[in-house]
Amino acid sequence: MSSNRRYTLSLSCPDRVGIVAAVSGFLAQHKGWITEASNHADAEAGRFFMRQEILADTLPFGLGEFQAKFAPIAAEFGMDWSISDSARKKRVVILVSKQEHCLYDLFARWQSGDLDIDIPCVISNHETFRGFVEWHGIPFHHVPVTPDNKPAAYAKVEQLFNEAEGDVMVLARYMQILSPELCANYPGRIINIHHSFLPSFVGAKPYHQAYTRGVKLIGATCHYVTSELDQGPIIEQDVIRVDHSDAPDDLVRYGKDIEKAVLARGLRYHLEDRVLVHGNKTVVFR
Amino acid sequence: MSSNRRYTLSLSCPDRVGIVAAVSGFLAQHKGWITEASNHADAEAGRFFMRQEILADTLPFGLGEFQAKFAPIAAEFGMDWSISDSARKKRVVILVSKQEHCLYDLFARWQSGDLDIDIPCVISNHETFRGFVEWHGIPFHHVPVTPDNKPAAYAKVEQLFNEAEGDVMVLARYMQILSPELCANYPGRIINIHHSFLPSFVGAKPYHQAYTRGVKLIGATCHYVTSELDQGPIIEQDVIRVDHSDAPDDLVRYGKDIEKAVLARGLRYHLEDRVLVHGNKTVVFR
Amino acid sequence: MSSNRRYTLSLSCPDRVGIVAAVSGFLAQHKGWITEASNHADAEAGRFFMRQEILADTLPFGLGEFQAKFAPIAAEFGMDWSISDSARKKRVVILVSKQEHCLYDLFARWQSGDLDIDIPCVISNHETFRGFVEWHGIPFHHVPVTPDNKPAAYAKVEQLFNEAEGDVMVLARYMQILSPELCANYPGRIINIHHSFLPSFVGAKPYHQAYTRGVKLIGATCHYVTSELDQGPIIEQDVIRVDHSDAPDDLVRYGKDIEKAVLARGLRYHLEDRVLVHGNKTVVFR
Amino acid sequence: MSSNRRYTLSLSCPDRVGIVAAVSGFLAQHKGWITEASNHADAEAGRFFMRQEILADTLPFGLGEFQAKFAPIAAEFGMDWSISDSARKKRVVILVSKQEHCLYDLFARWQSGDLDIDIPCVISNHETFRGFVEWHGIPFHHVPVTPDNKPAAYAKVEQLFNEAEGDVMVLARYMQILSPELCANYPGRIINIHHSFLPSFVGAKPYHQAYTRGVKLIGATCHYVTSELDQGPIIEQDVIRVDHSDAPDDLVRYGKDIEKAVLARGLRYHLEDRVLVHGNKTVVFR
Repeated sequence: MSSNRRYTLSLSCPDRVGIVAAVSGFLAQHKGWITEASNHADAEAGRFFMRQEILADTLPFGLGEFQAKFAPIAAEFGMDWSISDSARKKRVVILVSKQEHCLYDLFARWQSGDLDIDIPCVISNHETFRGFVEWHGIPFHHVPVTPDNKPAAYAKVEQLFNEAEGDVMVLARYMQILSPELCANYPGRIINIHHSFLPSFVGAKPYHQAYTRGVKLIGATCHYVTSELDQGPIIEQDVIRVDHSDAPDDLVRYGKDIEKAVLARGLRYHLEDRVLVHGNKTVVFR
Repeated sequence: MSSNRRYTLSLSCPDRVGIVAAVSGFLAQHKGWITEASNHADAEAGRFFMRQEILADTLPFGLGEFQAKFAPIAAEFGMDWSISDSARKKRVVILVSKQEHCLYDLFARWQSGDLDIDIPCVISNHETFRGFVEWHGIPFHHVPVTPDNKPAAYAKVEQLFNEAEGDVMVLARYMQILSPELCANYPGRIINIHHSFLPSFVGAKPYHQAYTRGVKLIGATCHYVTSELDQGPIIEQDVIRVDHSDAPDDLVRYGKDIEKAVLARGLRYHLEDRVLVHGNKTVVFR
Repeated sequence: MSSNRRYTLSLSCPDRVGIVAAVSGFLAQHKGWITEASNHADAEAGRFFMRQEILADTLPFGLGEFQAKFAPIAAEFGMDWSISDSARKKRVVILVSKQEHCLYDLFARWQSGDLDIDIPCVISNHETFRGFVEWHGIPFHHVPVTPDNKPAAYAKVEQLFNEAEGDVMVLARYMQILSPELCANYPGRIINIHHSFLPSFVGAKPYHQAYTRGVKLIGATCHYVTSELDQGPIIEQDVIRVDHSDAPDDLVRYGKDIEKAVLARGLRYHLEDRVLVHGNKTVVFR
Repeated sequence: MSSNRRYTLSLSCPDRVGIVAAVSGFLAQHKGWITEASNHADAEAGRFFMRQEILADTLPFGLGEFQAKFAPIAAEFGMDWSISDSARKKRVVILVSKQEHCLYDLFARWQSGDLDIDIPCVISNHETFRGFVEWHGIPFHHVPVTPDNKPAAYAKVEQLFNEAEGDVMVLARYMQILSPELCANYPGRIINIHHSFLPSFVGAKPYHQAYTRGVKLIGATCHYVTSELDQGPIIEQDVIRVDHSDAPDDLVRYGKDIEKAVLARGLRYHLEDRVLVHGNKTVVFR
């Protein structure tokens, strides 16, 4: 009886003739059943991107042997590549401050099984959600952040993330700017939700900036964190309509609906290995 | 020192010259400060709709005296009218089945204060969410519904709603069809979220119906419940894009994001007295 | 027999008790039938905005007498106000360069009667659309713009606009930056469509800027022109989803659909006196 | 020097291991450079769909030899397949009635080169657009349709389409129901824009149906015409928000913006061989 377990192969390499043929030939030779395949040729960058989902049980070998057998092809084409196994749940460490909306939203998705992840812990600079998180059986770590203790605080966050064997760190409206060192240590593994439609309204109080400018739509942006504030590769964005009757408080409230939806979509793309980063941009195979 | 307390006056009446003048004249005479005013003249129905928000403390009298003094104007114009006081929180009874998304979403909005309501209790036909609800300090009532016990079950629901002094009953993906009697007893006070863009895909398994038809957008509809299934006055709707690669399970998952957003918006409009029903349609003063 | 002719009264003034009562009392006293009424109180600015549509034939007097009789009320409240008559079509001068999409779109709306305007002439810095415009019976003026002749060219544009007795100048992808003098001479009367979601991507080649940044939505902005490039009051905006597979040329092509739709909506709001400017922001009574 | 000419290979077949390998292996063997590749496995139907764009000049042979060499692979996998050459412009016959919006929109796209097509003729049941069409250098055929002459009229339409060597017939708000015979003769080659979000509001006056039901969004649907009215495979849909203040005439006006945008997108997908029909559904490789 066949299971639903999948391997997901993601790769990029300089574009040339024969990449798809080599990869799909390899899979066909070993009777691998492809359930989803996506390609993108970036003509300007001269680079090719590919993602393949394969039914694990149709292959005669496991992940280790796959990697060994595929390595020569990867080497021939100069591929930047990885493969993941759906049987191993990704470990998502959530960082939160005092706002409910993203935390409740992620927990509902995790509880229902729509997000098939492990949450090894939640880290916060406030005690606000200790009860809620612990009621769900998840460890909660309070790491206060003050103007004076930042290096120590972020070292503690990094230590907790490592001890939790986290795959990805999600800033679910964490409201703190991570240290450049922390950002640099986990490229493509820290996901933030910024409460504006970037590149508009970088930095603090974007809804108030939007109110002052009189824009007719506000937005949110899910992006990988880099050491430059709000400048990392964008994974997902969305907007919602507002008008003159909306005060800054209304924008904040509307914005929450967009923030949690955009974060959830961006995180899902990341977890399913649908996001390939190249330079400061992303290929997202939805 | 002025507070933020508001009275909200909602009315409709046959359209004629002088309605706005009479209402705004009355308010001005008593120095009532209007913070928001909306009007709609339905030319086809020959009916006029109005909503006024007034700063309570600018008036020299309370709600009872307002009602007494306004009654002659209401009588003169044949108004269907009501007035509410923001100082009195509305009491929202939530009915839920086994799906998390709407429940978690409503609770997050209530916890953050974005939904300024009381939740006197949650009623469910399953025990699934007893722990979650009770952890938040809200009474939870398990009222099983079986093919055989429906009259008794809905009588119990009605009794609980009345004991809770509920203002509005929210079917947050309750998945049960209320009895016609229950629907008829609370016109304009039972709000449902249907998981399709009505009038498409009435009834059961709308996402599967949508998949079979091959539509390119799926939606959700927040409406008042009437005794005719999925035919009540529509308060709010929205859609999300899907494509050929989405299986029915994907549609279900995407749909949840629309359902909870549409329910939350529709419920907010209702709670803020922004929805005026006329026949089987609504005027929604957003 | 009653006609459909309307007067539209637009005003703003410092907020205080009694404005709506005074205006609606005046209209009711003269038996004016209100077909649409909109209000907005800007609490931060302490300013009140109002728009009233009245069936002209229900009033016992014409526009001149309306203005005379209303003047004392306007003076009492310190109103900034105007009144327009739907029987007088607004005169829209269109400026265009070499791109078809906005011009064809506006002409289709005008031909079908959806835009109930006069187009006294089209002005262009190229000869491209002379045939198309003249076939529709509209005068076409070619005013070349070169680095050397700008003052003379814009003086010519201004002269043509004045001779045409234009009410509003529409830059339908005109691709030239008007002189500060011209902008200053017609505040709130020159409408531009900018091909980005402002304030992102000000200036030249916004779609290429958007491509480089890797945004997931692109947009367009309809705004009043001021002497500061792309900084004027925003009337309307919208966005469209793009992804990694879209080259800059694709963004340009998608963008056209948004540009023409946003321009058409913004222009309609302006023509129906739905846009009230305050500072660098707009109130748009849709 | 390499040109931009493309071959587009589209196919579907029963799903099994090795399809992608066979096709991409064939292309790689002949040094074909793939610029865009899309796949879809429909697990429920057990069918695989594929579209490949190849730079024509990288292959050592032309379309005829491609077809001959590829035939054995197609036979082996039981493929339903076709290949097209971007060097041959598709011939689009437009049918129109008395509404401007879709016609002007399609003509603007064709004039600008965004739609790289030939328009051999326009057919209408009215004379309304003869001048406009002929001014653009396109033949115009007036084929009146009356309750009595329908068989003859549609025979005439079919004859004109055949004489024009049309690839696709576009009903750009043609407002006439084609005969079942005509529909059956050109499966997947007649594209209609219906002015509702199907399956809601089939048939006549959908905007009035939408008004009566009180929906909060209206839509448009681009679909292939089959002999069952408004039941053919859906290519593209979209919606726009409306509210209580919108009369049926407003819905008609808003709807036009959606209709022309949805028709243009759907037509583009068809012209670029992005639409594969299976049963009554479409795979659209955007």
